[in-house]
Amino acid sequence: MTEHPEQIAGYTYGTAEATASPLTMEDLERLKAVVGLTKEDQEALVEAAGILADQADDMVTAYRDGLVELPFMRPYFGHPDGSANPEYGAASKPRFDRFIIDVCTRPLDQDWLNYQHEIGLRHTRAKKNATDHADSLDHIPMRYLVAFTAVVIATARDYLAAKGSSPEEIDRMHAAFTKAVMLHVTVWTRPYVDAADW
Amino acid sequence: MTEHPEQIAGYTYGTAEATASPLTMEDLERLKAVVGLTKEDQEALVEAAGILADQADDMVTAYRDGLVELPFMRPYFGHPDGSANPEYGAASKPRFDRFIIDVCTRPLDQDWLNYQHEIGLRHTRAKKNATDHADSLDHIPMRYLVAFTAVVIATARDYLAAKGSSPEEIDRMHAAFTKAVMLHVTVWTRPYVDAADW
Repeated sequence: MTEHPEQIAGYTYGTAEATASPLTMEDLERLKAVVGLTKEDQEALVEAAGILADQADDMVTAYRDGLVELPFMRPYFGHPDGSANPEYGAASKPRFDRFIIDVCTRPLDQDWLNYQHEIGLRHTRAKKNATDHADSLDHIPMRYLVAFTAVVIATARDYLAAKGSSPEEIDRMHAAFTKAVMLHVTVWTRPYVDAADW
Repeated sequence: MTEHPEQIAGYTYGTAEATASPLTMEDLERLKAVVGLTKEDQEALVEAAGILADQADDMVTAYRDGLVELPFMRPYFGHPDGSANPEYGAASKPRFDRFIIDVCTRPLDQDWLNYQHEIGLRHTRAKKNATDHADSLDHIPMRYLVAFTAVVIATARDYLAAKGSSPEEIDRMHAAFTKAVMLHVTVWTRPYVDAADW
């Protein structure tokens, strides 16, 4: 089960502690248009939330089980020598679990922009490790952030199918989830790139 | 129908004209691992190629029909004022069509790395417009390149389903296609980002 958001340490969604995003609502509207996120997709995401909510913890566990298999990835979430850091893992997991639900349910507004920018920063030298006082490598290369999206999207289908929805419903939810995840990850890349190039 | 690669103007795959990639084969192996691309996925991609090959032209037409609906996107492929540039569209389309097939069939080797880097550069100030002598805006913001991946991935399912494969085969091909597309787009972002951050 995922925790109630107010109980998640470091989860600053909708608070003044989240960094102000440099993006405008017009920037967001354009990104929504480019990923192709429609009103129908947003309705499908509400359905998806109902199906994924109690699987979010399992989904994130599966992501991490995959990443820990890759020795070169371990220093980003373990200690710098690649050894495990269970405290950091435990501290950051509820926020990652919450992300699965937020992807499907959060209104795309200024609070959303701000917290997505905060998440982006927490992957880079600007804020990595600060929230949980961890000693992992202080920057996740952008290529791994973008590339891992494939796993999140490709594996989502089985979770979306787990509650007996029709193939058509699963298709709709999976397409909407794909667009929503890409929207989030795109915004997370903002801190990595010069404004004029991003 | 897609043209034979040697007949496609500006398609420098496997030639000395494609830029040398700054990435190593080890970088590529790591990215393959992070997107989760397995041997089974690569087999599924061969199947996908058989299904998508004669639909590639329609797929790219559909992408472009979507993008032309967005006025703020038009100056990147039309003239700078947003008016249509059919010559540029016609010149670049066979390469884009060919991408659909290449995603599914090309061995992931040094030629692949080099040509993907070339594609990345052709989205940025380094090489945008040069191949086709176009006057469009000279840089596609990275956010649109990444965000639009959602459309390519989400819409692929119907094309993969168009030849009567079983739901399980479609799932396998769609997951493999998702990983392969994300691998490509990830490498295309290299020219946008400082090496130390990418």
